[in-house]
Amino acid sequence: MEYQLISADSHVNPPPTIWREYLGAEFRDRAPRLESTDEGDFQVFEGRRTPLLGINAMAGRRFEDYSLNVRRLSEQRPGGWDPAERLKDQDLDGVQAEVLYGGGPLPSQDPALRHASFLAYNDWLADFCSAAPRRLLGMAYIPCESAEVAIAEVRRAARKGLAGAVIPRFPHGGGNWFDPQWEPLWDTLVEVGWPAGVHVGGRGREAAMPSTDSTGFLADLLMSKFAMGEAISILVLSGILERHPQLRVISVEGQIGWLSFAHYYLDHLWERHRYWTRNNLKERPSYYFKRQVYATFMEDPVGLRECHHIGVDRIMWSSDYPHSETTWPRSKELTESWFKEFDAQDRLRICAGNAQQLYNL
Amino acid sequence: MEYQLISADSHVNPPPTIWREYLGAEFRDRAPRLESTDEGDFQVFEGRRTPLLGINAMAGRRFEDYSLNVRRLSEQRPGGWDPAERLKDQDLDGVQAEVLYGGGPLPSQDPALRHASFLAYNDWLADFCSAAPRRLLGMAYIPCESAEVAIAEVRRAARKGLAGAVIPRFPHGGGNWFDPQWEPLWDTLVEVGWPAGVHVGGRGREAAMPSTDSTGFLADLLMSKFAMGEAISILVLSGILERHPQLRVISVEGQIGWLSFAHYYLDHLWERHRYWTRNNLKERPSYYFKRQVYATFMEDPVGLRECHHIGVDRIMWSSDYPHSETTWPRSKELTESWFKEFDAQDRLRICAGNAQQLYNL
Repeated sequence: MEYQLISADSHVNPPPTIWREYLGAEFRDRAPRLESTDEGDFQVFEGRRTPLLGINAMAGRRFEDYSLNVRRLSEQRPGGWDPAERLKDQDLDGVQAEVLYGGGPLPSQDPALRHASFLAYNDWLADFCSAAPRRLLGMAYIPCESAEVAIAEVRRAARKGLAGAVIPRFPHGGGNWFDPQWEPLWDTLVEVGWPAGVHVGGRGREAAMPSTDSTGFLADLLMSKFAMGEAISILVLSGILERHPQLRVISVEGQIGWLSFAHYYLDHLWERHRYWTRNNLKERPSYYFKRQVYATFMEDPVGLRECHHIGVDRIMWSSDYPHSETTWPRSKELTESWFKEFDAQDRLRICAGNAQQLYNL
Repeated sequence: MEYQLISADSHVNPPPTIWREYLGAEFRDRAPRLESTDEGDFQVFEGRRTPLLGINAMAGRRFEDYSLNVRRLSEQRPGGWDPAERLKDQDLDGVQAEVLYGGGPLPSQDPALRHASFLAYNDWLADFCSAAPRRLLGMAYIPCESAEVAIAEVRRAARKGLAGAVIPRFPHGGGNWFDPQWEPLWDTLVEVGWPAGVHVGGRGREAAMPSTDSTGFLADLLMSKFAMGEAISILVLSGILERHPQLRVISVEGQIGWLSFAHYYLDHLWERHRYWTRNNLKERPSYYFKRQVYATFMEDPVGLRECHHIGVDRIMWSSDYPHSETTWPRSKELTESWFKEFDAQDRLRICAGNAQQLYNL
């Protein structure tokens, strides 16, 4: 297949049955269950009853009809959990392959159940992707309480045919990625040929105000993109990427319009403060960004204006299907309109080639 | 005077004697004092003995000689506190006027002393600026525990001839700027003709890791620029700038290379999520940014490439003298080199005209 359009960041919305079917036998009776009532469908787990999140499945809706929750599971696009429906939606959009994020572990209070849910999710995802292995590339969610646990799941999920690791911005168990215990994880990722994807998410305690009203919600969506800068900068500045030159890191769903400034300004700061802070990098920070840091974007004219400064071989378009920011079902038309003035090779790199190479397609 | 180069963000470093001389009589015996020892000079205040911060006074040093602290007060440039020395330094740099930040209140545990220190600082600054009122424009630090207290100090400091208000990213007493109690503050600022400057600072609890080593320090310097995005976005998204069309806000020392993305992406998010989040802005967020938000930068080629998208009448160059990022003593030479390809009118706006207009010079 000649790839013209690969979404480097798309999402699954696993079905409510995932946990009953995929959790280890000892946890199945504690799996979340779907409760259908006259007021709508709810997920019930560990004593909490929550409405179904809808904002993750808005593909195809008019903006006027966006909503945080949906009333019924049937209001979500089945492409989130049904591979056949998914491929139909992708054909309609002109997208030939997708890298799949989303879902991930259960927010359990019990560490054992939480850990089991990472494995269950990855197993479900491997089965989902097996429907079309050249078109559906699954990213395994890695439990990062300790390097030993993380490495075990990287090896296990790699054998299942998944395509890369999703790691949190900061280790689940606290501490920092540059703590010596994590060195063997970076070695393992290089060994299995996996990139490490850091996906944007809520900022939690870092947010200045809760995202419970419009102002807080919208400001947090902007700031969650910038928050990616901190996670990636720490990987660069602490020397992890220098020590592991084969390690590839992806800023996922972080957009790219701020990245050119981050390259420039970290270099500028480093030149001024490297001496007294005793930073030991051999090259300027942007050198490692350009060598090893990939970044995905959906629609980002500012980033595209700056793409030659960021590096056209390190940025990757994504549809974000079926999330609220998706370009579906107009991905082909939109990407063609953005890249009219571009060199055809650069366009192909950004829309397909960089992902094709990163995932050995 | 025809202004060609105005620094829209420079800094004073008040002398150790400021508090003894300017605090109300009832607080003077609790003023910080300078202790000279064989190991160096220290400031002693409320039981804490701290070395003198040097990173705020690195102007003219080689990067190899930068340091967080200085041993002796005499190692700092006297331009930080002596207006005659300051003007000599500015003549050397080709800078005709400066807007002055820095210093600010004492970090006292006692609310009464803390409040008194705002007034003392502003009084000292007014005296400092009186040496050359057309060249030294002082920004008053406003205590924002409540709107009543804030308004009183705005009125008092405006009568002293200061040029604008410095407000924190979020109110000192907690809560949000869009809480109804703050409405009269915005009215007052418009009434006295003062812009409100929000200056970057440490991020505190928002930081993912302490800035105690090189990685944390450099990552925090980058992220503190992005953190400005949250404060300003909240002012825009919550409708404060819409309700007060004459109010002018300044992002101070926040750089501008991320601002074009913030404009674009907030618009993009607002268009998608305005309905279900019930955002009531009448125009897109970038409309209010372009109408009322000014931003200062030191050296920022990324921002200058995007300046027509941000708005050439809203960005203002600054030397940041005498801080570690200053362009001093090469401000004239550097700004000339950056703007070679620019329209002469645009260059003049960014380097002087916008500030001249904002401060009625």
